[in-house]
Amino acid sequence: MITKAQVKHIRSLEDKKYRSESGSFVVEGDKMVLELIQNQIEIKHIYATKNWIDIHRTKLKITTPLTEVIDSELERISFLSSPNQVLAEVYFSSLNFNEISGHALLLDSIQDPGNMGSIIRIADWFGITHVYCFGQCVDVFNPKVVQSTMGSLLRVNIRSIQIDEVAELSSKSKLIGATLGGENIEQISKTEQMILVIGNESKGIRHEIIDLCTQCVTIPKKGHAESLNAAVATGILCHALLC
Amino acid sequence: MITKAQVKHIRSLEDKKYRSESGSFVVEGDKMVLELIQNQIEIKHIYATKNWIDIHRTKLKITTPLTEVIDSELERISFLSSPNQVLAEVYFSSLNFNEISGHALLLDSIQDPGNMGSIIRIADWFGITHVYCFGQCVDVFNPKVVQSTMGSLLRVNIRSIQIDEVAELSSKSKLIGATLGGENIEQISKTEQMILVIGNESKGIRHEIIDLCTQCVTIPKKGHAESLNAAVATGILCHALLC
Repeated sequence: MITKAQVKHIRSLEDKKYRSESGSFVVEGDKMVLELIQNQIEIKHIYATKNWIDIHRTKLKITTPLTEVIDSELERISFLSSPNQVLAEVYFSSLNFNEISGHALLLDSIQDPGNMGSIIRIADWFGITHVYCFGQCVDVFNPKVVQSTMGSLLRVNIRSIQIDEVAELSSKSKLIGATLGGENIEQISKTEQMILVIGNESKGIRHEIIDLCTQCVTIPKKGHAESLNAAVATGILCHALLC
Repeated sequence: MITKAQVKHIRSLEDKKYRSESGSFVVEGDKMVLELIQNQIEIKHIYATKNWIDIHRTKLKITTPLTEVIDSELERISFLSSPNQVLAEVYFSSLNFNEISGHALLLDSIQDPGNMGSIIRIADWFGITHVYCFGQCVDVFNPKVVQSTMGSLLRVNIRSIQIDEVAELSSKSKLIGATLGGENIEQISKTEQMILVIGNESKGIRHEIIDLCTQCVTIPKKGHAESLNAAVATGILCHALLC
């Protein structure tokens, strides 16, 4: 049985302000919560149906706080349109940030939660270990972002970055900017270590970051669309540069 | 000044049932409505602010019904979180469907409006002239799809298709299925005419369509994500197969 205070607390985690205060965020659904457990991420609290608990109890640490909920209670705390058996509150601090070792993405103000989630999934697919968020990026612990990463959030190192750190990164790695007027991506030689820079959905990459890029690249166009969705462009560029 | 009946009618066009009855759908915002006009698409009715009308009146056909609205009225009829000066109701029948001439996409039950919009934009970017929708695809005239195509809806031929027509297409063109266990896309030779098949976000391509495919292809994976977002995968495959 869930308390009113618990409902209020979980619902408050939709807002970045409350996530920062509490140091935690929400992960939902059987598949993603099992990934948390497999990856030994420290869970603050689990809310699950009796059926889920019966099946998975032995996988949980004995010290993990656990509240059994009925479907209507799960609906009250869930951010999904179709809640799925279990919801976990997780500490930010349980996700490690390791130093850069391979390729990375640098995002300048990606604002759509679906795009941010898809981009983190792309990084995980192509073995890109780090994602840096610059400017007004949507918070990666926003419930919509968390769900759309499909678990990749747990495997990619993600953090916010300021302009001086971007300058430092650019002195060590090749920064490749995705723009509409760059070199044809087909003509770019593959590189050992690179940081692909993706700009805001409508404004692209800001000038101060473009100035730090070693080169700018463009996906060849054969038709008439003015641009591609930011996540789609990220996927195409990662494939072209890394495969 | 807008009437109550007009507000009710426009709002009803969020539902496929009412769009079918009325034979029309909604396009919003300065940029997209100007594309309608440039492409000589027949507009059923325009609702616009005084400022927009003052600037663009000469571009409109004299026979196009036009209602001046104030911002608060535009907010009542708009499907956008930030309404933008103008909203047009457009007849389906004003969009032509031309017979297949080049590459095409075949979508099996793409359900997310954002994915559908991004995929239509990808088709337009890569010069793919036709998109066929099979199974339970989200309706392309859904307001969220229309807006996320960013105008590409007007330049790509899109229609629903049944299984017997898919069989007929497969007898004329090479059907290439996007699956998780196909041949590495890097090893596929580029082809003159092909129809790329993209499956549902969670279930992939159904067996009866897979059986009609000439070959199945996969994007090489270097990391750990289980899959890529359907629109992202479409973009990568179109680039790999067509550029």
